[in-house]
Amino acid sequence: LAQRVSRFGTTVFSEFSALALKHQAVNLGQGFPDFDGPDAIKEAAWKAIQGGVNQYAPGVGARDLRVAISEHAQRFYNHAVDPDTMVTVTSGATEAILDVILGLVDPGDEVVAFEPFYDSYDANIAFVGATPRYVPLRPPDAGHTTWWFDRDEVRAAFSPRTRLLILNSPHNPTGKVFTREELEFLGNLCAEHDVKVLADEVYEHIVFASSRHIRAATVPVLADRTVTVSSAGKSFSLTGWKIGWIIAPPPLRDAVQRAHQFVTFATASPFQAAMAVAMRLPDSYFQELTALYTAKRERLLTGLRAAGLQAFSPEGSYFILADITGYGFADDVAFCRHLVTEVGVAGIPPSVFYGPEHRHLGQRFARFAFCKTEGVLDEAVRRLREKL
Amino acid sequence: LAQRVSRFGTTVFSEFSALALKHQAVNLGQGFPDFDGPDAIKEAAWKAIQGGVNQYAPGVGARDLRVAISEHAQRFYNHAVDPDTMVTVTSGATEAILDVILGLVDPGDEVVAFEPFYDSYDANIAFVGATPRYVPLRPPDAGHTTWWFDRDEVRAAFSPRTRLLILNSPHNPTGKVFTREELEFLGNLCAEHDVKVLADEVYEHIVFASSRHIRAATVPVLADRTVTVSSAGKSFSLTGWKIGWIIAPPPLRDAVQRAHQFVTFATASPFQAAMAVAMRLPDSYFQELTALYTAKRERLLTGLRAAGLQAFSPEGSYFILADITGYGFADDVAFCRHLVTEVGVAGIPPSVFYGPEHRHLGQRFARFAFCKTEGVLDEAVRRLREKL
Ligand SMILES: CSCCC(=O)C(=O)O
Ligand SMILES: CSCCC(=O)C(=O)O
Repeated sequence: LAQRVSRFGTTVFSEFSALALKHQAVNLGQGFPDFDGPDAIKEAAWKAIQGGVNQYAPGVGARDLRVAISEHAQRFYNHAVDPDTMVTVTSGATEAILDVILGLVDPGDEVVAFEPFYDSYDANIAFVGATPRYVPLRPPDAGHTTWWFDRDEVRAAFSPRTRLLILNSPHNPTGKVFTREELEFLGNLCAEHDVKVLADEVYEHIVFASSRHIRAATVPVLADRTVTVSSAGKSFSLTGWKIGWIIAPPPLRDAVQRAHQFVTFATASPFQAAMAVAMRLPDSYFQELTALYTAKRERLLTGLRAAGLQAFSPEGSYFILADITGYGFADDVAFCRHLVTEVGVAGIPPSVFYGPEHRHLGQRFARFAFCKTEGVLDEAVRRLREKL
Repeated sequence: LAQRVSRFGTTVFSEFSALALKHQAVNLGQGFPDFDGPDAIKEAAWKAIQGGVNQYAPGVGARDLRVAISEHAQRFYNHAVDPDTMVTVTSGATEAILDVILGLVDPGDEVVAFEPFYDSYDANIAFVGATPRYVPLRPPDAGHTTWWFDRDEVRAAFSPRTRLLILNSPHNPTGKVFTREELEFLGNLCAEHDVKVLADEVYEHIVFASSRHIRAATVPVLADRTVTVSSAGKSFSLTGWKIGWIIAPPPLRDAVQRAHQFVTFATASPFQAAMAVAMRLPDSYFQELTALYTAKRERLLTGLRAAGLQAFSPEGSYFILADITGYGFADDVAFCRHLVTEVGVAGIPPSVFYGPEHRHLGQRFARFAFCKTEGVLDEAVRRLREKL
């Protein structure tokens, strides 16, 4: 066992998915829809399989998908992306994140990120022998309508060793969507310290009416230093296809491509062909996705509140954090274990998305995913109302 | 750009695939078939897609595929594999190799491997801050009917810092199939030095009549210390589906799984379902694959020799190495560049599969893949006979 993995157990996603199965719990844990994306995408995959698109794709990705990614960036964000020099297709966003960290971060470097974080950031930083510097996002309070960060804390996290800032917006699990002004503040700080940015934007198409997703790479001060990561899983409700991508200015794309070629080399060819179709779906598809999730968010939010939980309304993503401090459990893990075994509902304890220093901040919450059919959301609420 | 990637350029596979395309060369470079595996596998993928197997698979892999991998190991090698504690499904063998190295090798450790090697070994060893110790395989000569290694050189490569031996059999690109006696010698050395083994056996089903593939993990002295890596790409002629797997005793499986969960987390669900069908194909499928490649090997071997090249007959894999020393080029890269641009045939220069110390040994050869339809092999030979 190498030291870099010795402190990791099983990811919380695997642990609670297994627990949910064992206890026949309603699974609002890991973020995958219990419904699939459009048939047109599935049929495009079958057409590719039948049509002989079954051997290695180019390492950087199938050209048609790279072109479709470029068109999509232009259409939604006016983000000019050259398909040949600025894109790498990956086996999901998780691989993309590792490629970026392998390609850009040296041992001894520091990486700034917000807590709570998607747990692979922390593991990947450890993989390369770098040190994370975490800044906690703070919950909405009297002075703040959304999750927020203390600018002094961010400033203090930067040092001459800082190499990378990880910026996840829309943010999992808080649902925060970073504003232009926040991105500019962070961008200026990065410019000052010559720091690159990994912008994880996998929830880019799940943003609610009150907010607007800003692609970090289109903020001028961030443009030259930002590597954007996104994926098909969340936007097209096909998390199991594992198609992600990296968009970056050519020198940064080259760095991450050098890593990618020795991580997975290439990504499933037929699904790349299908994703090119997906990325070109009309605007109406994306509008309907937002409408769908707006309704689901409302449904679960209302239900959780009816069950007595103080739940925060997310600006984006398909997760809701609820305050669990009133229930008398030692922490969020104890609460979530009780929930899955006794109440029959699986959520995710967010304290695992914090470093040791701020872990207690996460112990106040539980995370629930609302990317589920109405009947499932209703059954979860019914169980919570009855047994919590 | 992180230091670990700064010394890597583009993989030779991407470089020569692009060159082949540009010059409309017959592509005997990268190892992918120009024909696809059985329709039954494709239909199983479509059935899974239609049937809603489109969300995250479990991180360790879909259970049915893990069971099929276990059955396959039992059927072909009497290798007892518990599907629940000994298998991880990966996004191809390339990811599997990285998972093993991330999971087992610490910075400062040494890894012993044979040259020539699949280039991701070298990159992955660098990724984790370990040091490779390479031992060259020697070509057949008066005293040896096949590629061989000097036992003293292997002994000398081991040190108290050695953590892992990488063993690729059938071997790419020499086509060597390691004998039981060689595996026992290497196993004893590993036992003596408490070293783990990564057995890359992706060509396990492409072995010719004169030889027999021995699964390293079934050699008693290797059983407890060996992590087997294989994949669907080569055995089922679907390299673009990128399904690989790791088989290991439970403690080693846990170590690599801890890495895997933060590399890609999970692998494309529909193709996992299809691969479970593939792994259960009757013996006749595998016999026909061997027969097919036996004929192709003969066809290319005869053709290369007719074109004046001294070509070695491989015992396994779908690659042939040919001696190019008589042609007056500075090295294999110059030869292969000439070949692709002037002759219209793409091969791979194997010197990139050597460390700096023994690179000159690889400069004597060019590698040709024979996983191609007859017309393509014949056209390559025609061009070589005419223009080389
Ligand atoms: C591999 S889990 C990816 C992230 C996600 O879906 C979650 O946070 O639940
Ligand atoms: C990603 S290339 C994998 C190995 C192979 O096919 C080759 O050596 O050509």
